[in-house]
Amino acid sequence: MSSNMTIARLRAAYAAGTLTPTQLMDDIRERSAQYTDRNIWIHQLTEAELQPYLEALEQKAIDSHPLWGVPFAIKDNIDLAGIPTTAGCPEFAYTPSESAQVVQQLLDAGAIPVGKANLDQFATGLNGTRSPYGPGRNAFDPDYISGGSSAGSAVSVALGLASFSLGTDTAGSGRVPACFNNLIGLKPTRGLLSSTGLVPACRSLDCISIFALTADDANEVLACAEGFDERDGYSRANPFANQSRHYGFRDGTLKVGIMPEAQLKFFGDKGYESAYKETLEKLRGLGLEFVEIDYEPFNEAALLLYEGPWVSERYIACQPLIDDNPGAIHPVVRAIIEPGGKPLATELFKAQYRLEALKQKCQAQMAGLDCLLTPTAGRLFTVDEMLSEPILYNSQLGYYTNFMNLLDMTSVAVPTAFTDESLPFGITLVGNYFSDRALLSIANRIQRGLALPLGVEPATEASADEEGLHTNPVSNPDWIDVLVCG
Amino acid sequence: MSSNMTIARLRAAYAAGTLTPTQLMDDIRERSAQYTDRNIWIHQLTEAELQPYLEALEQKAIDSHPLWGVPFAIKDNIDLAGIPTTAGCPEFAYTPSESAQVVQQLLDAGAIPVGKANLDQFATGLNGTRSPYGPGRNAFDPDYISGGSSAGSAVSVALGLASFSLGTDTAGSGRVPACFNNLIGLKPTRGLLSSTGLVPACRSLDCISIFALTADDANEVLACAEGFDERDGYSRANPFANQSRHYGFRDGTLKVGIMPEAQLKFFGDKGYESAYKETLEKLRGLGLEFVEIDYEPFNEAALLLYEGPWVSERYIACQPLIDDNPGAIHPVVRAIIEPGGKPLATELFKAQYRLEALKQKCQAQMAGLDCLLTPTAGRLFTVDEMLSEPILYNSQLGYYTNFMNLLDMTSVAVPTAFTDESLPFGITLVGNYFSDRALLSIANRIQRGLALPLGVEPATEASADEEGLHTNPVSNPDWIDVLVCG
Repeated sequence: MSSNMTIARLRAAYAAGTLTPTQLMDDIRERSAQYTDRNIWIHQLTEAELQPYLEALEQKAIDSHPLWGVPFAIKDNIDLAGIPTTAGCPEFAYTPSESAQVVQQLLDAGAIPVGKANLDQFATGLNGTRSPYGPGRNAFDPDYISGGSSAGSAVSVALGLASFSLGTDTAGSGRVPACFNNLIGLKPTRGLLSSTGLVPACRSLDCISIFALTADDANEVLACAEGFDERDGYSRANPFANQSRHYGFRDGTLKVGIMPEAQLKFFGDKGYESAYKETLEKLRGLGLEFVEIDYEPFNEAALLLYEGPWVSERYIACQPLIDDNPGAIHPVVRAIIEPGGKPLATELFKAQYRLEALKQKCQAQMAGLDCLLTPTAGRLFTVDEMLSEPILYNSQLGYYTNFMNLLDMTSVAVPTAFTDESLPFGITLVGNYFSDRALLSIANRIQRGLALPLGVEPATEASADEEGLHTNPVSNPDWIDVLVCG
Repeated sequence: MSSNMTIARLRAAYAAGTLTPTQLMDDIRERSAQYTDRNIWIHQLTEAELQPYLEALEQKAIDSHPLWGVPFAIKDNIDLAGIPTTAGCPEFAYTPSESAQVVQQLLDAGAIPVGKANLDQFATGLNGTRSPYGPGRNAFDPDYISGGSSAGSAVSVALGLASFSLGTDTAGSGRVPACFNNLIGLKPTRGLLSSTGLVPACRSLDCISIFALTADDANEVLACAEGFDERDGYSRANPFANQSRHYGFRDGTLKVGIMPEAQLKFFGDKGYESAYKETLEKLRGLGLEFVEIDYEPFNEAALLLYEGPWVSERYIACQPLIDDNPGAIHPVVRAIIEPGGKPLATELFKAQYRLEALKQKCQAQMAGLDCLLTPTAGRLFTVDEMLSEPILYNSQLGYYTNFMNLLDMTSVAVPTAFTDESLPFGITLVGNYFSDRALLSIANRIQRGLALPLGVEPATEASADEEGLHTNPVSNPDWIDVLVCG
C-alpha cells in the first residue's frame, strides 16, 4: 500500500504509460474495501458511474489538463451531478443535476471523482463522529477520531484513496482533520472558491477547502478550483499578488507570530504538547524567527462563533428540516443548531460591531509579521473519548481555528511532527485574506525542511529529496507495483 | 451678503491682511442672526466659547495649517468637546469631554467651529423637518425643506455662515441637502473618516460626510479629515490610488452609466425633471458619454435599508431611551425606529445574503464605466408638503440614495442646474469604495464646465473663471467689504 499519490507522480506514471486511469480507479476501489472501518464514504462511485469520467479523459490531452486522471474525494455537502448530496443527513438528501462550480472546474481540468465523503452532519463539528454513516476514524489508528467535519475527505487522501479532496471549512473543518491525518489543509480566502453548489453551514463564512499531500499539490488544485463566480454573493476576484504564479519557495528569514506559553492549550495531551515544542525547535532551525503575540482578541473572536448569533446561519441552512422533522437531525447537531432560531437582529449587529473592533486589534497584532503560527489542534481524542463528551471536547478542537473566517483570514495546516505513539501533529499558518499563495509558499518551505512522510506512507518511503516534492518526479516503478497490487 | 467663502479665498484674505479670524467670526455671528427662520443651529458657539480656538490660531502658522481660520459647522450628532451633543433630541444630550476624531483633526488643521447644526433627530430622515429645534428650511427659499438629515450643516454653508461643514450620511443625509442647497456633498468611502465620537444611526453603514462649495474644498477638507483610526472597528486605511495627490481635473471622454427613462422618478416635480434633462444635455457638451444601466438591483438594495432589518441598528443606537422614555423621541422618528427591536438574526442574515447577491449584480452593471450618474433627489418638497406626508415623501427622497452604503459605494453630489423657480438641482456621481478622489475629480470637471454660482451667491458673482475655482485667488476686496458689512 502506498499513499504517495502526489499529482506529479501520477502524471509521470500516466505519461510513462505504466498506469491508466481505469487501472488506478480499479485499484482504489479494491484498496477502499480494506478501510470500511474508517467510514470514509457516504457514496463511492460505481464502475458505471465512473465510466463517463474515464471516457471523457480520452478526449482530453494530458498536457493541457493539469489534473488529468487525478482522483479526488468530495465532501458530501458539495454537489456532484447525478449523485445524492446528503450533508450527512439522509432525510435532507437531494440529487443535484449540476455539479458545484468548484467540482465542475476540477472535472474540466481532468480530475476523477472517487466518491462523496463522510462528514459531521451539516458540517457542524470538528471531530467526525456526528454522522449517521458511522464515525470518521483516523487514517493512522482507527481508535482515534478522524477529525471533522471533513472526515472522509481527509482520511481518503491520507490512505491513498484520492490524490486530493475537497472539504469545507467554516470553523476549522478543513484544518483539524488535516492535522490528525498528516495532510496539508488549505482554508482558502473567503470567496476565492465559489460556494455555488455547496450546502451552507454558516453561509457568510463558509469556504470550500483543499486537502493534499503537499503544498505543491494544494497550489495546483487551488489554481484549478479558484475563480470569481457572480452567482455566489460572497465570491471575490483574486488580486494579482495572490495568483498561482506567486506560489513558490519562501526564502529568507521569516518573522512569525506565536502564542505565549500561558495562552497555549493542549487539554492534557502531553504528546501534542511535546510535538508542538519539537516543531518550534525544528522550525527555528529552518530560519523561522518567532515573536510572541497576544492571542486574546483572536480567542474572543473565536468564542463569538458558537456563543454568538452566528448559529442562526446554521439554523437557516437546516430549515425547513429543523422546523418540520427535527428528529431527522443528529441529536448533538440539533442541540447546537436549535437555539439559532432565537437571537434578535439587534444581538447580531452588536456581535458584528464587537467583531469589527476585534479585527482591528488582531490586525495590530499581525503588523510586520510574515504570518502567525499556532498548533492546529491541542489534543487528538479517541472516538470513545469524543462520544463521551461530544460538545465540550469538540469545542476544545476549535480553540485554534474558530476565529479564522470571522476575521477574514486565510490559513494552511501543515504537518510538522509525530508523537511518540506515531500519531500526526501539525501547525497552522495564518495570514490575512488573499495571502493564500504566501502561506502555501511558507508551508512548502516547512514541508521540504522537515521531509516527513506524506499521508500514512511509511517513513522509509519519504520523499525527503526536494526534487521529488517540487518537480515532476520520474515515475517510481516500485510504487506503481505496490499500487496495482493494492 | 456673500456665500463665496471658499477656503482659498479666505486664506488669501488672511494672507493679505484684509481679514482676521476674529473679524470673520464676528461677522458670521451677525449674519447668522438674519437667518433664524432657517433653524440652522442647535448651538452656535458664543464669543467666549470661540476664544480658545481663536487664541490657538495665534500659535499656528498659516502655511503649515491648511484650514487656518476656516469656519466650519458640525452636525449635532458629532462631538465637539465641551459643547452638548443632542443628536436632535434634548433628552439624549450629553457633553463630551473629547471632540470626535474627525473634528479634532480639523481643529488641529486650524479650522474654527461655528456651531452644532440642526438635524433630523438621530439622523433619521432625509428632509430636515424631524427636529424639536424647528424644521430645517432651504437656504434659497424658506418655504422649502432644507433636506436632511444634515439640515443645518448644508444651509449654513450655502448661506456663507461656514466655509464647509460636517454632516453624516447613512442613507443620503449628506447628499440630499447638498442637492437642495447648491453644494458639493461628499459621501466618502465607508471607514475613510473615523466614526469615533459620532452618535450612530446605523453603525455598520454610517459615514461622516462633507459639505463644501467646491470639489477643491471638499478634497482639501477630506485630506485633513480622513485617516485610519484603530478605535473605530469600521475604519479602513486609504489605498495609494485614492490619496489626496490623485485629486485633480479628470480629462478625456468619460463613460458614465445613467438610468433608463422608465426607471427615473421625479414624483411630479416638473422643475426637477427638466433640470435633469438639461443637466444631461450640458454634460454631453462637456464630454460625458452616457450608457444606460439597469437600476433595478440598486433599487432592490435601497429598499433593504428601511424595509429590512437594518432598522435594528437604529434601535440599538437609541437604547436605552427608546425603551425607557419613548415619548422623548420625535413621533415620526419613533414610528420608524420602534419596530427595529423585533427582527430576528435569521432575518438579518437572509437580508445580508440577498445584499451580497445584489452587490454582484450592481458590480456587473458598473463594469467598464467611469462612474454612475443619477439625480440626487427626484423632488424638492415644501415644508408644508413634507409635514403632511412625513414618511411617504421622505422615502421618495431616498430613491436615488439609500443603496449607497449598503453596496459599499462612494458618491459625490454635484450642483448642475437651477429650476425656473431658481431652486437648485444636482446629480450624484457614484463609484466603488475608495473612488473618492476619482469622483471628486469628475465633480471638479463638471463644476468648472458649468460655472454655476456657489451656494446662494447671486449669479453675477459666480466664479466662472477656472482660476478662481482651482488656485488660490487674489483676495477680492469687494467681497471682503460685503462680508464685513454683513
